[in-house]
Amino acid sequence: MAVDHSNSLHNYKFEVPEIIFGRGMLSQVGPCARRLGGKKIFLVSDKGLFHSGWVDLAMRSLLDAGLEFIYFDGITPNPKDHEVDAGVMEYLRHGADVIVGLGGGSSMDAAKAIAILVSNGGKIRDFEGPDRIIRPLPPLVLCPTTCGTGSDVSQFAIISDTEHMRKICIMSRCVAPDISLTDPDTLSTLPDEFVGTTATDALSHAMEAFFSIASTTLTDVHAIKALRLLTGSLAAAVHEHKPEDMENLARASLHAGMAFSNSMLGIVHALAHPIGGLYDANHGSINAILLPEVIRYDIPVVTEKLEELAWGLGHRSNGNISAASEKVQESLDSLLEASGAPRSLRSIGVQRKDLPELARQALKDVCIATSPREADEEDLLNILERAY
Amino acid sequence: MAVDHSNSLHNYKFEVPEIIFGRGMLSQVGPCARRLGGKKIFLVSDKGLFHSGWVDLAMRSLLDAGLEFIYFDGITPNPKDHEVDAGVMEYLRHGADVIVGLGGGSSMDAAKAIAILVSNGGKIRDFEGPDRIIRPLPPLVLCPTTCGTGSDVSQFAIISDTEHMRKICIMSRCVAPDISLTDPDTLSTLPDEFVGTTATDALSHAMEAFFSIASTTLTDVHAIKALRLLTGSLAAAVHEHKPEDMENLARASLHAGMAFSNSMLGIVHALAHPIGGLYDANHGSINAILLPEVIRYDIPVVTEKLEELAWGLGHRSNGNISAASEKVQESLDSLLEASGAPRSLRSIGVQRKDLPELARQALKDVCIATSPREADEEDLLNILERAY
Repeated sequence: MAVDHSNSLHNYKFEVPEIIFGRGMLSQVGPCARRLGGKKIFLVSDKGLFHSGWVDLAMRSLLDAGLEFIYFDGITPNPKDHEVDAGVMEYLRHGADVIVGLGGGSSMDAAKAIAILVSNGGKIRDFEGPDRIIRPLPPLVLCPTTCGTGSDVSQFAIISDTEHMRKICIMSRCVAPDISLTDPDTLSTLPDEFVGTTATDALSHAMEAFFSIASTTLTDVHAIKALRLLTGSLAAAVHEHKPEDMENLARASLHAGMAFSNSMLGIVHALAHPIGGLYDANHGSINAILLPEVIRYDIPVVTEKLEELAWGLGHRSNGNISAASEKVQESLDSLLEASGAPRSLRSIGVQRKDLPELARQALKDVCIATSPREADEEDLLNILERAY
Repeated sequence: MAVDHSNSLHNYKFEVPEIIFGRGMLSQVGPCARRLGGKKIFLVSDKGLFHSGWVDLAMRSLLDAGLEFIYFDGITPNPKDHEVDAGVMEYLRHGADVIVGLGGGSSMDAAKAIAILVSNGGKIRDFEGPDRIIRPLPPLVLCPTTCGTGSDVSQFAIISDTEHMRKICIMSRCVAPDISLTDPDTLSTLPDEFVGTTATDALSHAMEAFFSIASTTLTDVHAIKALRLLTGSLAAAVHEHKPEDMENLARASLHAGMAFSNSMLGIVHALAHPIGGLYDANHGSINAILLPEVIRYDIPVVTEKLEELAWGLGHRSNGNISAASEKVQESLDSLLEASGAPRSLRSIGVQRKDLPELARQALKDVCIATSPREADEEDLLNILERAY
């Protein structure tokens, strides 16, 4: 079943927040929050980041802009529903009015979830799936300090439902922030392992966005640019930490985020969500493990787009589809090697006995809807087995 | 003086409205206006378009959404300050609350100018230049029916100051609409001559945006995509009017608009504004005439970006800059030939005696600030002479 990628009968929407990007720009978070009408800012971050000095810089910027703030750092990786509830209580108790999320995907997704609940009430699991949010959220500024999540521009928020050991995927234009502010200098303090694993998250966003059945020319240009930036800078960033390469990773994350927020994703993310929910494992690592197997599965139905993808990864295949396909898989493999990310589900502690249940859960994930190739439970289980 | 295009020390902003694109989507203008809180819609269009049936379609969509509307068509090409004033009177007299601009750049720029004045008061010339707007504008939906202006996504509005026979260039994030809605079906009734001349406007937006000193990777990907779409479809659209090619021109206009709104423009537009103001001539035609001369002027300082541009125009120059430069100029020339746009200032009625004054005025235009190559009055006069 070949998918029509011509887009010619394709109606689409494209929406991104206001984007601010540049070294040193974190000092502008105060003016941004003030411009959105803030007086008392709810600053969401995590304990790890505090010691890097970036939280302090953001706090000073808020104070310099004449703003009060409440600092909330009760967030862990794969942010949990009860952490969100605690944040909501703090926000309401202090009467905050604008939310700033500073950190990786966990801090930013938690900031989004807090924003949902302070204006809509209820429990975060009430908002699972597409378009369940009724009331407008407080203004939101998101500042990524890793290089992969894309949460700072995306219409997604992922929260762990600890009761059911699964991840809730919330999809709504409302959770895209008002302002996405990237300061690539913040990557200078990111531990090595997270440079590689968050960059592979950007890689999987770009590739899944590019092959998504909801992709358009507006998303494709950003997906391809992300791949070109990763191809040029990922290995060097991981090994040499040059600021130009780190900046290119930050930029790749932004481009990939703009792409997937509007085209959505596919099987990699549909599987990564239940795995992350069950094992509390690193999201970028899970994606890195699944991506080659999912691409292998997708390739037969995406031949029309393979050559452009190969070009994005640095190859000119001159119309030869099987050459393009080989090059794509080779390049992907060497990017993943360079990232240092783990390469098997076994190595991150996934238990074989859980694979069938993971496949079942993935079938219900919102990301499965835009996969270029349809998949049933058995197909997903095969992918998991190969990635094991 | 070579310009640094590496962007590595470059802080930037990128902002685009919500974008809706697709054949048949004009029927969604009513729901869009209602979603923005509208009850009484001020619909700005022009008399020419009325007879094509698209205005009627928009009106029906507004009525179907349960909205009242006031129809205002007192707009001419290169929209005039007094036409804007008349629109403002009508808007206020009826107590409208949302503005829909439907048409080419003239209707959309007039809609923007009316929006500025109904909430800020004063005369439109008070808002000339960057960031002069104080109060928020009423919500704005813009629906292009030509394939070049980019006004539907841009932070620019251009209005003719009839007293001084010049164009006022207003630049503000406030004039980007809330929603940009493109229905490429509307191009099916666009007269042939306007297909070519508005597409050359998109062409000049893409090329000036790409070479602008404010260009970034976020704008470059859109500029290059616009050039690739124009290269693939401009000649065929002008000669065969196939819906796929027309749709590609609409998409090229959108991509080019997203690029130039955020990177700004250069000498072509700095010169086109005073020429348009003095002669009330077609904007796309003026750009088509000036573009080859300005690119020739720019090339010595943009060599780093030439190869990517050549690729956008369908060539692979493999690192050979002079080959890339030749290919760019050849491709540009054949695109302009195919468009049917005029090729000399003389042919559109510009008088030689006015050239020095036009050069002087261009030096004061906001677009000159982002030209990749600096230019004084004599340089601009030389360009005008060569294009004469």
